[in-house]
Amino acid sequence: MKFASYKVEGRTTYGSVVEENNTIYLTDIGKENGHDLRYWIENDTMNELRAIAEATKTRHIEKYVDYLPPILSAEKIACIGVNYANRNAEYKDNSELPKYPSLFLRYLDSFTGNNQNLVRPPESDKLDYEGEIVIIIGKGGRRIPEEKALEHIAGLTLMNEGTLRDWVRHAKFNVTQGKNFEKSGSIGPWMMTSDEVADYTNLAIQTRVNGEIRQDDNTSRLMFPFAFIISYLSTFMTLKPGDMISTGTPNGAGARFDPPKYLKPGDIIEVEAAGIGVLKNGVEDEVLK
Amino acid sequence: MKFASYKVEGRTTYGSVVEENNTIYLTDIGKENGHDLRYWIENDTMNELRAIAEATKTRHIEKYVDYLPPILSAEKIACIGVNYANRNAEYKDNSELPKYPSLFLRYLDSFTGNNQNLVRPPESDKLDYEGEIVIIIGKGGRRIPEEKALEHIAGLTLMNEGTLRDWVRHAKFNVTQGKNFEKSGSIGPWMMTSDEVADYTNLAIQTRVNGEIRQDDNTSRLMFPFAFIISYLSTFMTLKPGDMISTGTPNGAGARFDPPKYLKPGDIIEVEAAGIGVLKNGVEDEVLK
Repeated sequence: MKFASYKVEGRTTYGSVVEENNTIYLTDIGKENGHDLRYWIENDTMNELRAIAEATKTRHIEKYVDYLPPILSAEKIACIGVNYANRNAEYKDNSELPKYPSLFLRYLDSFTGNNQNLVRPPESDKLDYEGEIVIIIGKGGRRIPEEKALEHIAGLTLMNEGTLRDWVRHAKFNVTQGKNFEKSGSIGPWMMTSDEVADYTNLAIQTRVNGEIRQDDNTSRLMFPFAFIISYLSTFMTLKPGDMISTGTPNGAGARFDPPKYLKPGDIIEVEAAGIGVLKNGVEDEVLK
Repeated sequence: MKFASYKVEGRTTYGSVVEENNTIYLTDIGKENGHDLRYWIENDTMNELRAIAEATKTRHIEKYVDYLPPILSAEKIACIGVNYANRNAEYKDNSELPKYPSLFLRYLDSFTGNNQNLVRPPESDKLDYEGEIVIIIGKGGRRIPEEKALEHIAGLTLMNEGTLRDWVRHAKFNVTQGKNFEKSGSIGPWMMTSDEVADYTNLAIQTRVNGEIRQDDNTSRLMFPFAFIISYLSTFMTLKPGDMISTGTPNGAGARFDPPKYLKPGDIIEVEAAGIGVLKNGVEDEVLK
């Protein structure tokens, strides 16, 4: 099942995603039952939530809601850097395959939701896309063994891990600045629950800009598969229900073209991964007040 | 005035710091008034809090409480990397002075409070100290001009920005892993309100290990002074009340000695900065269950 968080009628709510006659409806579980999506994940009551979703009468046509990232109160949003094997080759520095993944953190404010515009700030014209699959943690834990790691996934969502390319290189180490501009990225359109995933090591992912395929890969080529990532991060941090871990982007980001193909107002970026859906965003220039 | 957060009688509370006859007492504002320290910062009612602190009767002798980081619900804990000018020279790579600061993020779980032990995990014997002064944001904002930045400080506290040296080098970029081991660092002992700071550009800071001075510097030598840091971070992120920004460590961390002087159980680390107080921690080995 799929669950989205969204704003409607001035309220923040959440519900299941229902497709009928080519129209997407979002049930309004929040209106009838309170709580938020993370509540059910944290309490390990996703089965109960599914039953509630089936019984929920109130629903909205997709075009009348504002999508939000599916989890709005995650403690952590951790992002894996270079992970798809052929992306490491893109760096052309003859470096050997890394032993451990690169890791950085983003705050929720740096993301918007599906169908919203990414914001290009006046400080940079180098806004770039990175399509990624995001793990949403279900059961938390510390030092989770790799062979049990996949049991800790509540579901998957998508991320456009939008980046200001010049600002990631402000310092010798650490990409924090260029990864945390407000609304420079997006998460969504919704969470697909883990029971719908047949094989985490065989998920296709594609990013398109104005319909042109820019990134096209498969999790079978990850240097650090989902199970490793969960186990590795939990070595030093306690993972908690609702934590999101973005698993890295394939090659083909705009910065890798010569000349680079950065995003500009009017562009439409779509991130799609098999079964989850499409995360779609436009781009707008920020207007300073 | 100084305000600490702490645990006592199984409760999490907060209060002002009172010294009488060489004994430190903590008033129990939480018990009598509810809320937490960040509540007063967020509501811009620190003057009211001062009056309440004067009137609060319940208090505890320091040795009967467990100190916590002063802010327990900060959205952000941002840390500046190399900042004291002579620390850049320590890297001996002939690099020019950087134009922008290095920046990384830590989660609250990676810190303990004053008088608690830092935790050395079984995964590394390279636990190192870094004494730092921490800005606690009062009034939030985005794109705060440098000349107004100091008005956004609610107060200062101290950080031992404890680091697992081998884990910060797991990846080519980003030090996230080695900076986020649970309870590898500490924040405290308390927040000193901004009205007690005469000059942010002239604050002495010293770190001692078992009484031996290891770091000894002054904010007059910061490459990126507090006003710049606040303005710079607010360029891309909205700073919020209670956000903590650690301002970088002087030279003399354990890793810089030959051979390196890493921390081990039994060591006592003290970080002291003029007027704020002393942040004191021991070290213990983590015992896996």
